[in-house]
Amino acid sequence: MLTLFASKGSVSVASAIMLEETETEYKLEFLDFSQADQTKKSYLNINPKGRVPALVTPHGMLTETSAILEYVAPDFIPQAAYSAARVREIIHYLASTMHVNHAHKMRGASWADDPVAVKSMVIKVPATIAKSCAYLKKIISGPYIFGSKITIADAHLFTIAQWLKGDEVEIKNYPKLARFEREFATRPSVACVRARGLL
Amino acid sequence: MLTLFASKGSVSVASAIMLEETETEYKLEFLDFSQADQTKKSYLNINPKGRVPALVTPHGMLTETSAILEYVAPDFIPQAAYSAARVREIIHYLASTMHVNHAHKMRGASWADDPVAVKSMVIKVPATIAKSCAYLKKIISGPYIFGSKITIADAHLFTIAQWLKGDEVEIKNYPKLARFEREFATRPSVACVRARGLL
Repeated sequence: MLTLFASKGSVSVASAIMLEETETEYKLEFLDFSQADQTKKSYLNINPKGRVPALVTPHGMLTETSAILEYVAPDFIPQAAYSAARVREIIHYLASTMHVNHAHKMRGASWADDPVAVKSMVIKVPATIAKSCAYLKKIISGPYIFGSKITIADAHLFTIAQWLKGDEVEIKNYPKLARFEREFATRPSVACVRARGLL
Repeated sequence: MLTLFASKGSVSVASAIMLEETETEYKLEFLDFSQADQTKKSYLNINPKGRVPALVTPHGMLTETSAILEYVAPDFIPQAAYSAARVREIIHYLASTMHVNHAHKMRGASWADDPVAVKSMVIKVPATIAKSCAYLKKIISGPYIFGSKITIADAHLFTIAQWLKGDEVEIKNYPKLARFEREFATRPSVACVRARGLL
């Protein structure tokens, strides 16, 4: 049995979506970030990083979205080496560039102590997220990133696409991305994740 | 035939190391960042991201360290699902947390326009990198991250460990990390990469 530690709207939603897509039985442990649950000792004992997602498996604990997505949904990565690498390329980009761009709105203090700096980072988020969207619109084949078959990268992108409004980026300015988001939103996995309170 | 676009000391060194470890024949295209080679039109035509590494394969171009490492060295990831996930967990952490911490020294302007903010980010780099080292020291089994068998995560960590001095973090304060770095440095792959001018 797997246990997923997740919070509403965070990147942990991607892991929950893939657990639903693969019809894996799992227990959901809900962390309320407004109550700073992720910084409490009870959670730090499970995941010292104080972040989500964290997946408790029969073998041990696992963190980091890309690792969890591949672990729970290996069949959602193409068999062919280059195609698999392209899926990982997107996930790596989403995690280390686009998610990081977004994080400068909420977690600027991670990288600078001066409040002026933190404020300046917040101001630039719409521009850096728009740049990421401009990159992604060239990548998406439609309806999903790599065509008609979904991969773990789609769950990751769908999750991050939910942040655009809050980051003051109009998804409609990126029609391919908007179409992808609308299409993915109709999947039963998304309905399940929403019913469980994660979206 | 593969072609790796790389620059001295950058994260692209990890990809070169794994190409050497796997004894893959490849052509090295050297980018000189001091000449801003990565921003020149000739390179942007190959990799619009303007970053390294980029790997040209018979199937097409590939970017992002984690994707390239798995593509060139699939045998350097354990077969067992949880063990493989642990390797990916480290790589994902290095790319989206530790590398990002380091990037605030050179590329702060990516996330804020105010020069005061950019300066404030530079000041915090030693602290954020020290935090990453404190996390890693708990992870390393020794001599390599997961014991006596190297994985793609080792090449990634070794590459990033070369940045510590410039980031004003004393590796000797993290004995397990220092021992890992010394051990990995003796590998023939590292000598080859050094001989090719990447280290």
